[in-house]
Amino acid sequence: MASASASPAVAPAAAAVPATPMLKDELDIVIPTIRNLDFLEMWRPFFQPYHLIIVQDGDPSKKINVPEGFDYELYNRNDINRILGPKASCISFKDSACRCFGYMVSKKKYIYTIDDDCFVAKDPTGKDINALEQHIKNLLTPSTPFFFNTLYDPYREGADFVRGYPFSLREGTPTAVSHGLWLNIPDYDAPTQLVKPRERNTRYVDAVMSIPKGTLFPMCGMNLGFNRDLIGPAMYFGLMGDGQPIGRYDDMWAGWCMKVICDHLGLGVKTGLPYIWHSKASNPFVNLKKEYKGIYWQEELIPFFQSVTLPKECTSVQKCYIELSKQVKAKLGKVDEYFNKLADAMVTWIEAWDELNPAGKESAVAPSGPPK
Amino acid sequence: MASASASPAVAPAAAAVPATPMLKDELDIVIPTIRNLDFLEMWRPFFQPYHLIIVQDGDPSKKINVPEGFDYELYNRNDINRILGPKASCISFKDSACRCFGYMVSKKKYIYTIDDDCFVAKDPTGKDINALEQHIKNLLTPSTPFFFNTLYDPYREGADFVRGYPFSLREGTPTAVSHGLWLNIPDYDAPTQLVKPRERNTRYVDAVMSIPKGTLFPMCGMNLGFNRDLIGPAMYFGLMGDGQPIGRYDDMWAGWCMKVICDHLGLGVKTGLPYIWHSKASNPFVNLKKEYKGIYWQEELIPFFQSVTLPKECTSVQKCYIELSKQVKAKLGKVDEYFNKLADAMVTWIEAWDELNPAGKESAVAPSGPPK
Repeated sequence: MASASASPAVAPAAAAVPATPMLKDELDIVIPTIRNLDFLEMWRPFFQPYHLIIVQDGDPSKKINVPEGFDYELYNRNDINRILGPKASCISFKDSACRCFGYMVSKKKYIYTIDDDCFVAKDPTGKDINALEQHIKNLLTPSTPFFFNTLYDPYREGADFVRGYPFSLREGTPTAVSHGLWLNIPDYDAPTQLVKPRERNTRYVDAVMSIPKGTLFPMCGMNLGFNRDLIGPAMYFGLMGDGQPIGRYDDMWAGWCMKVICDHLGLGVKTGLPYIWHSKASNPFVNLKKEYKGIYWQEELIPFFQSVTLPKECTSVQKCYIELSKQVKAKLGKVDEYFNKLADAMVTWIEAWDELNPAGKESAVAPSGPPK
Repeated sequence: MASASASPAVAPAAAAVPATPMLKDELDIVIPTIRNLDFLEMWRPFFQPYHLIIVQDGDPSKKINVPEGFDYELYNRNDINRILGPKASCISFKDSACRCFGYMVSKKKYIYTIDDDCFVAKDPTGKDINALEQHIKNLLTPSTPFFFNTLYDPYREGADFVRGYPFSLREGTPTAVSHGLWLNIPDYDAPTQLVKPRERNTRYVDAVMSIPKGTLFPMCGMNLGFNRDLIGPAMYFGLMGDGQPIGRYDDMWAGWCMKVICDHLGLGVKTGLPYIWHSKASNPFVNLKKEYKGIYWQEELIPFFQSVTLPKECTSVQKCYIELSKQVKAKLGKVDEYFNKLADAMVTWIEAWDELNPAGKESAVAPSGPPK
């Protein structure tokens, strides 16, 4: 593992940063990457106060450059194998699903994860959007998954619950996940990319809302915040990429598992603001190859997740997740052998999580090497 | 009933109106009122091509002035009593709930209903919003209540279904209801009005979305479109106002009944655009008196509606509604005697609806008098 301390070499753009960055010591930014992290330059005013966990995918001998002045730790595949031993099999390789290793080794309460092709977007007034700050606001205010508020987030300034909203539900419920969106390149699947190669998302929808209980959604991992203490062990991004029959369903899988567990545990999930600027579309032909099995398997996955019920005894995220892995094996194993393997990996993931995050103790992961 | 024909006395603002107004002969605009309809002047460019059904509440001897050039029919309490006979008991008096009489006598496929204190709002570019046109677009495109699309309405120009949205669900389902919002005065209950007398809604959220299956919401009757053929008989606004223990729950009641029936029948409900400009807040002290029973009854109503299931044999809106009335009597009758009365009125409403709208025939209501 490589690590580095914040250096004052580059002064942050003071005007754009709040005097004390929110949750400065309680949040890690997790970035999966295969290239130099020049994209961080644009994020410097917003990210520099925070600690980064960089998960290097692909060839571990490659050196990833991180711009000066960021406080980070970096894990490559060798680090993952060394830290997890045989359990490293649950962490995907050659797929951004590897990012979930960063969730596991973090010691913080909150995680923000972002792709390295995402840049700072501008709001309609032309102001740079501090995506991280908005995610933190989303995570620190309650969610309202039990009844829909037509004026969207009732906790936002200038908004409230509308007439007819039951008073007993106005306290809301703790927010586990904040799902942000993307301007410019929308997060389309390969068939839609092929059909609409020039479509760009230019619509800034000024809203945050809770996704209702019982409703599934496509969670994208590009711009995502969550409360690790509340939901961390459910944020497993599955088996994708190298040696696996699918890709690009890592965040979807995590989203469906996470949502049924949040619904069961009474936790909230928000979507909407903040936007990031998604700079370039991935290759639709490559994507099609990665996705095609997912596209038809999904037709069975969604009814499965829509009908999952977890027993009352599942009172922790871990218990829910293990129970879910059993149901995956029982119900989806017949769709494809892959789901048996995935169900096993879900169990391995929880074992690895609990090993690195023993209850009531600090994480068992110790930094292993000097800064490279 | 008073009626009048369109007169060319005032030329519509041609630039603002589409060459052929959408659904010109298939949509009625229903307006409940107790005053002169001067507010229509502002709506002239958008409403003049359409037929209006005005439901005059309160003193039937009062003359309501309708600006020149609008094509309308007007019903006062005497008309309602004459047309419905003893069944007129199901139509509220001294409450805007009386508007649902207009839904019943319409012969059109679509209804748009608006309050007379609602004016034309402007979009962020300063352009007048043609609320009716947006409702029609919402109603003519499918809904997606079975899975949440994070980029909102996937049928809108520049948008689509995102990665991870099941392809089998991309056809959507017919849209029964389009619920529009309000700039300026938000639709708050009396307690919130009292606590936040100066709060104004200034946030223009540029989105339309489907309300997921299984999710209830507070439906406001101020700015509402629906497909009368698909859901009309469920749009009963209940017993409110004169002689009743509550008010201001008419649209809420209709919304909850309508939503469980739409969920059962696989119909969609949208909320979001269009905005109207809500000009003035009603008196919070008067509202509190009307609402206070509703505010605590509601705590039992919501769990009731959340747990309602309709049997498979309920294959029409009428059958669903009659079944719902039975469940209201069985489960809510013990909350208050009022709900027994309301359950009976629900049955009366369906009887009256079927009388005026015999299957396969034109409505049985004949215009009854010369223009006043």
